[in-house]
Amino acid sequence: MAEPRRISIMGSTGSIGTSALDVVAQANAAGDTPFEIVVLAAGKDAAALAEQALAVRPEIAVIADESQLPDLRKRLAGSGIETAGGASAITESATRPCDRVLAAIVGAAGLASTLAAVRQGTDVAIANKESIVCGGKLILSEAAKSGARILPVDSEHSGIFQSIGDGRSLEKLSITASGGPFRTASLEKMAGATPAEAAAHPNWAMGIKNSIDSATLMNKALEFIEAAYLFEVDAAHIEVLVHPQSIIHGMAHFTDGSVIAQLSMPDMRSPIAYALGWPDRLTTNVARLDLAALGRLDFEPVDPARFPAIELARHAISLGTGGTTVLNSANEAAVSAFIAGQCGFLDISWAVEEALSRFSSGNMASLACDTLDEIAYLDQFGRDTATELLRRAPSRAGG
Amino acid sequence: MAEPRRISIMGSTGSIGTSALDVVAQANAAGDTPFEIVVLAAGKDAAALAEQALAVRPEIAVIADESQLPDLRKRLAGSGIETAGGASAITESATRPCDRVLAAIVGAAGLASTLAAVRQGTDVAIANKESIVCGGKLILSEAAKSGARILPVDSEHSGIFQSIGDGRSLEKLSITASGGPFRTASLEKMAGATPAEAAAHPNWAMGIKNSIDSATLMNKALEFIEAAYLFEVDAAHIEVLVHPQSIIHGMAHFTDGSVIAQLSMPDMRSPIAYALGWPDRLTTNVARLDLAALGRLDFEPVDPARFPAIELARHAISLGTGGTTVLNSANEAAVSAFIAGQCGFLDISWAVEEALSRFSSGNMASLACDTLDEIAYLDQFGRDTATELLRRAPSRAGG
Repeated sequence: MAEPRRISIMGSTGSIGTSALDVVAQANAAGDTPFEIVVLAAGKDAAALAEQALAVRPEIAVIADESQLPDLRKRLAGSGIETAGGASAITESATRPCDRVLAAIVGAAGLASTLAAVRQGTDVAIANKESIVCGGKLILSEAAKSGARILPVDSEHSGIFQSIGDGRSLEKLSITASGGPFRTASLEKMAGATPAEAAAHPNWAMGIKNSIDSATLMNKALEFIEAAYLFEVDAAHIEVLVHPQSIIHGMAHFTDGSVIAQLSMPDMRSPIAYALGWPDRLTTNVARLDLAALGRLDFEPVDPARFPAIELARHAISLGTGGTTVLNSANEAAVSAFIAGQCGFLDISWAVEEALSRFSSGNMASLACDTLDEIAYLDQFGRDTATELLRRAPSRAGG
Repeated sequence: MAEPRRISIMGSTGSIGTSALDVVAQANAAGDTPFEIVVLAAGKDAAALAEQALAVRPEIAVIADESQLPDLRKRLAGSGIETAGGASAITESATRPCDRVLAAIVGAAGLASTLAAVRQGTDVAIANKESIVCGGKLILSEAAKSGARILPVDSEHSGIFQSIGDGRSLEKLSITASGGPFRTASLEKMAGATPAEAAAHPNWAMGIKNSIDSATLMNKALEFIEAAYLFEVDAAHIEVLVHPQSIIHGMAHFTDGSVIAQLSMPDMRSPIAYALGWPDRLTTNVARLDLAALGRLDFEPVDPARFPAIELARHAISLGTGGTTVLNSANEAAVSAFIAGQCGFLDISWAVEEALSRFSSGNMASLACDTLDEIAYLDQFGRDTATELLRRAPSRAGG
């Protein structure tokens, strides 16, 4: 029997983490090279974490919220599974020897544990696009030093990764966007959109922040940036294509006129399986693609007037990692303001654009973003700037 | 500067051969690793062959029709380019040392020269689907002995070859069919179709035999068989998908639910470039794919009532190489009869089905098809059987 693959799942109780455990269970049941779980790490849901731990028997279960550690300990008493709590325990657990870390913790905590694993030379399957958008330069330079591989989990980047081969003779990359709930909406309708309207995503089940990012195409802007960093391709050679059925996820265009594309039903378990199994493909129960049954695939260009996010991504990339960090945090703050009813839908992109403008005209544009502190500083700058802008200039459009 | 790639083009004045010379010229102009031409071989057009030879300066120009050799000699006098004529000279020229032979001679002459190159261990880019359908078993077993690689040139097989990776974890292959001119026609309309109606192919420019094969989907049946042999995949795991735009050419479906597909504009220079350049990609001037401009891609299942060819291919494969050889030659004879006005359009598939039935019930089903003689015998059997059937039972359907 082949040596088991030993993996750690950081963020095990979230959507990506639970899908990953499902993928592992399917692969183990199918007789693929078996997986063993080294670490399960979660935020604050001790009950869910304990239930997962009792099912898959990791070496250790770690909870970020230390106040939940006693509950976790109680639930795992007598199981022989170690327990730990707190942010530093999360980061430390990511350095436990294993074959691959799945980095699926959102936000700053995710970046620190990802960096710890990469520095140690452990391959990381990275599901947190913000950590590439903000910390990409840092993570990739540390990976180059340690020899760690960065394997994408986002469906678009997994699609490109599965299509790009050795990366030679590449002419262009494409990522697709469903177009979100406002694909066919007028600018006027978008100006008056409510959070509930914006959060109605047609193809993928996701949280409200991600759903609103999908309505502004800011999710695609973040993925655009992630693609530029991960594949080291100039922004001029990356296109975003609206594709409502979300079947083709990523494409690589070559100098001979050929395009290689990855297709699958919109189910995160396919790209998660690829990132966990690479270079092997695992066996999953994901619904199989049946193009004859689907009948058609549609494609449109992105309308920059209604969806300025992609142009903002190109602009942010031209400003360096500081620019992309500010884009990300200004967007987070603006989405929060929109959800709280403090600004209109179109104000989200406006606030991001303004924050980028203040970043590029201010003296922080020289920051190299090669330490966690600098990233944290610019993250806060983008967040504060967008919040302040939206507080001072209430709704330009949606009000 | 990198060592030049030395290639021989068998069938240089045909559609594939002239496209290949265009591909070579574009790649050389783009500064790719340069190509040198060792052999140019053609059927009977001495003027065209001489013109090509003077442009690309092969070691030797060979013409199959010996009566044209004096003319070829005269045209190349003083050029320093060797000349030769006759079928055996064609076969012999295919064994000249080179890095890759492009096998684009149609029919039996193509099979002999392909086999000669393969036996010597030279990699062959194979454009003649009949030589795989009839001689596939023989060619692949000789290639396994000599270490020669068989590189597909047909767009569908090139698409699969570009998508299949190392072939592990494969679940299914797909090839696409434009659907031809009768994609939306009624059975009644097809029964009365004329050769001119059947030869109107929507996407690809091709000769009349190939166009009629495209109308019956017999071209797809031959490609189905070729895919089964080349990729050693069971017929049950190959699907044909009608895709009118001919943008996706081939797909590989994997156990994780992912599908890798190759897309390009319908231009044979893309797959030719892949077969000549592999494992590198060349630079071509082929029109680039713009999915947003195309707008949509459509897919339908094949209707087995109007297009029995695919089911006939499955049946022929189940009968072994003899069955696929009979399918091919019976179809050739039936298409000739249809073009000559001796039978109706639907009689083509009927004659193939009947010829397969006589083959399987006769005592030749035990022939192993592992020599050129046995292949020639079964080729003639299929041809004679179909011709005789259509002569004795004039048009069942087309009147």
